[in-house]
Amino acid sequence: MKLKSTGKKWEVDEMSYNKLNENLIDRIGEIVGEEGVIRDRDKMDDFSHDEYPLLDFKSFPDIVVQPRSTEEVSQIVKLAWENSIPITPRGSATGLCGGCVPIYGGIALSLERMDNILEIDEDNLLVTVEAGVKLMDLFKTVEDRELFFPPHPGDESAMVGGAIATNAGGSRAVKYGVMRNFVRGIEVVLPNGDVEWLGTKNVKDTSGYSLVNLFIGSEGTLGVITKAILKITPQPGATMTLVAIYENLEDAIGTVPEIIKKGLSPISIEFIEKEVIPPTEALLGKKWPTSEGEVHLMLIVDARDEDELMQIGEELVDICTANNATDVLVADTKEKQEEILDIRSNIYLALKKDVVEILDITVPPSRIADFVKRVRDLSEKYKIELLTYGHAGDGNVHVHMMKGGEESAYSPLRRELHEMGIEMGGVVSGEHGIGLAKKEFLKMMGEGKIELMRRIKRALDEKNIMNPGKIFDL
Amino acid sequence: MKLKSTGKKWEVDEMSYNKLNENLIDRIGEIVGEEGVIRDRDKMDDFSHDEYPLLDFKSFPDIVVQPRSTEEVSQIVKLAWENSIPITPRGSATGLCGGCVPIYGGIALSLERMDNILEIDEDNLLVTVEAGVKLMDLFKTVEDRELFFPPHPGDESAMVGGAIATNAGGSRAVKYGVMRNFVRGIEVVLPNGDVEWLGTKNVKDTSGYSLVNLFIGSEGTLGVITKAILKITPQPGATMTLVAIYENLEDAIGTVPEIIKKGLSPISIEFIEKEVIPPTEALLGKKWPTSEGEVHLMLIVDARDEDELMQIGEELVDICTANNATDVLVADTKEKQEEILDIRSNIYLALKKDVVEILDITVPPSRIADFVKRVRDLSEKYKIELLTYGHAGDGNVHVHMMKGGEESAYSPLRRELHEMGIEMGGVVSGEHGIGLAKKEFLKMMGEGKIELMRRIKRALDEKNIMNPGKIFDL
Repeated sequence: MKLKSTGKKWEVDEMSYNKLNENLIDRIGEIVGEEGVIRDRDKMDDFSHDEYPLLDFKSFPDIVVQPRSTEEVSQIVKLAWENSIPITPRGSATGLCGGCVPIYGGIALSLERMDNILEIDEDNLLVTVEAGVKLMDLFKTVEDRELFFPPHPGDESAMVGGAIATNAGGSRAVKYGVMRNFVRGIEVVLPNGDVEWLGTKNVKDTSGYSLVNLFIGSEGTLGVITKAILKITPQPGATMTLVAIYENLEDAIGTVPEIIKKGLSPISIEFIEKEVIPPTEALLGKKWPTSEGEVHLMLIVDARDEDELMQIGEELVDICTANNATDVLVADTKEKQEEILDIRSNIYLALKKDVVEILDITVPPSRIADFVKRVRDLSEKYKIELLTYGHAGDGNVHVHMMKGGEESAYSPLRRELHEMGIEMGGVVSGEHGIGLAKKEFLKMMGEGKIELMRRIKRALDEKNIMNPGKIFDL
Repeated sequence: MKLKSTGKKWEVDEMSYNKLNENLIDRIGEIVGEEGVIRDRDKMDDFSHDEYPLLDFKSFPDIVVQPRSTEEVSQIVKLAWENSIPITPRGSATGLCGGCVPIYGGIALSLERMDNILEIDEDNLLVTVEAGVKLMDLFKTVEDRELFFPPHPGDESAMVGGAIATNAGGSRAVKYGVMRNFVRGIEVVLPNGDVEWLGTKNVKDTSGYSLVNLFIGSEGTLGVITKAILKITPQPGATMTLVAIYENLEDAIGTVPEIIKKGLSPISIEFIEKEVIPPTEALLGKKWPTSEGEVHLMLIVDARDEDELMQIGEELVDICTANNATDVLVADTKEKQEEILDIRSNIYLALKKDVVEILDITVPPSRIADFVKRVRDLSEKYKIELLTYGHAGDGNVHVHMMKGGEESAYSPLRRELHEMGIEMGGVVSGEHGIGLAKKEFLKMMGEGKIELMRRIKRALDEKNIMNPGKIFDL
């Protein structure tokens, strides 16, 4: 897993990357201003990694560049293109697979200074933002106008550009879908520096290939996302959080397809094993509403008004009870709801120091119970603790590989987990992306598909300067 | 507009298409069986055009081939690839832009014999079908199980493969979205005959580039769609149709953003000018519920149950009335609803003999009133009747260019209409696709985007055998 020592640089047609010389660095400074350039290695550590817990994915860029406008991004990219310098776009680097690590050095292009919310179009329910806008700022801005941006990837400090580049998911996908479902258009800077708007404000669009959907989830390998038009919705009139308590896994997970089949569409259906709660309570100094049972489902429901909410809530309680929930707790005040959500959102933070890796293998919702059981079998087989919790409603329960076992077991265990997921009709990544960490697993989903991706990458970035080495090897 | 006389064949690297010889035709017969081959020109007329009303888009294939399985499609495509024979996939040919016309001859590949519904997965709310399944059969099959497939492109005889290849829309998109939003996975035969499944049954998927989204809407130019996994939903508990009567355009259209802003999400918001109704009533022998007013909005609403439905219905009546509707009629029985929908669905059929072309320029919903007014100005300028009706809720009001004026005005009028749409932030095609009819207008949306499409096309189909000449010129 030592990437720097085992990694092989990609070469094409005898071409290799050039190094930045003083002349080019001066030109970069002229484009973005001196305050938009970091050359001091001591100040670059933040730009050498993401949040992937296996820390070996660390590689310094030669320079960090922080442009202020699309025009500046275009000039920087053009300069990189003309001089064959690798360029790795990045937002807040909250990724979990090494996707924004500049493994070939070159330019780390940080979008953080492009953080303007450009337009809130209340008639069409659209918001236009720069790529460096943090999700937390987007949430707040629309909330202030009684509007709502539904996708909620775990880390609110993530930036819009990164969330689109990785097609981020999160816990609200059960009802609302993922980032892809909320992106109408993006402005991109192509590998040669050209600027294009892909997509528009329109609901329907069949005007040629859907380039916007090709770029969503392409992890910065096809271009730099500089702006986005995002769909927003009116705020739900009322919300409620339920915690259903179960004595065993099968009953809890068995409830999930029953809810989905009824079309009740909670915003979130989260599956939580009891042992992850106490460390999170300790971290936050907050209390989860119950210490009973072995396994909990957390359901968040929204509705147009209180009447509808109560009706849906009652139906959900009935379904949980019919599936052997011993109790269902209802949080109907904003404070109680926020406390529960806060604990749920911080489980990862509480476990983090002991986590080797957080996986995001995703299976069809009907297979989750079987998946979790097989994860437990593998945990026993390899004698590595595997904690499982997360987005049960969309089949995206995160397996957490914990420290404590033999390090030599990590690699075969990871491999077997991903093989198992694919064999169950799943995918190797549901919401984190491939980056560096999952390239070997993506291959298991079919070399034919990777060959199509390679051809597209070569067609749009023949010099392979744009976030090279990610998703697949060329 | 005489394509055959003015069309220029595409050539690459001195390569041109080969003709089918007797030997190849024999091999095709061996693959699909003799009953799967049509060589007699008298029986080929149906395969020489689509529903585009400007009839010049007519071109015969050398052979019509009707495979029964993916394996047979693969063998046929491989043979076409090896011998550089153009191949044009087609479903029911209900398209409106010449997208499936085999302009270079070769093989017309009809998917009509691949019409099996392979699986209804009620746990995951997914259905797996072959590409030749007609929408009407899909609707009926899921309805029999109290399930629902929301997208509803106008012509129910369309096949699933074609509806995906064109990312078909229709009137239910306001609430539910278009085909793209309901496709989880597709099996495709690539230009070289290789078979790949793109996408899976999973809700979340960030495993590399979204190839499935690239193929959706690519109009058969990247490969043949042979199977699809489609999302279905539980049936709504209750539905209602409202017809709101207005004295003028501005009030009717002005109502639309008010409804959308409130988050009431009707399934459909259709805009209908009075003059299109009598010919449709005459055609069907049915009665539209009112002859009052000048302009009508037809709203279809669904809800979980009658209570919710009545509540939404009342809110909609209030909004319409506040926007000067003189009356709002409610159809709450299934019979009345079907009668209204039947008339709405058949307006095009009633007008068809007098329609020169149906356009699908789409603008952001907030711009519709302005758009329709400017369409009327152009109608006066060119002295060509332009009837406008359709999907107001998503900005996709169809302009119908009617016979009766000077034919020499068609071309400049079409051009000006599309320019105007783009200038208003719209797209040249919202749901019909580009095919042949709109290639010149797609160019107006930006040569840079077309160049990206070209590169992708060349990367996946270097011999340009797959539905050549559509969407853009290589």
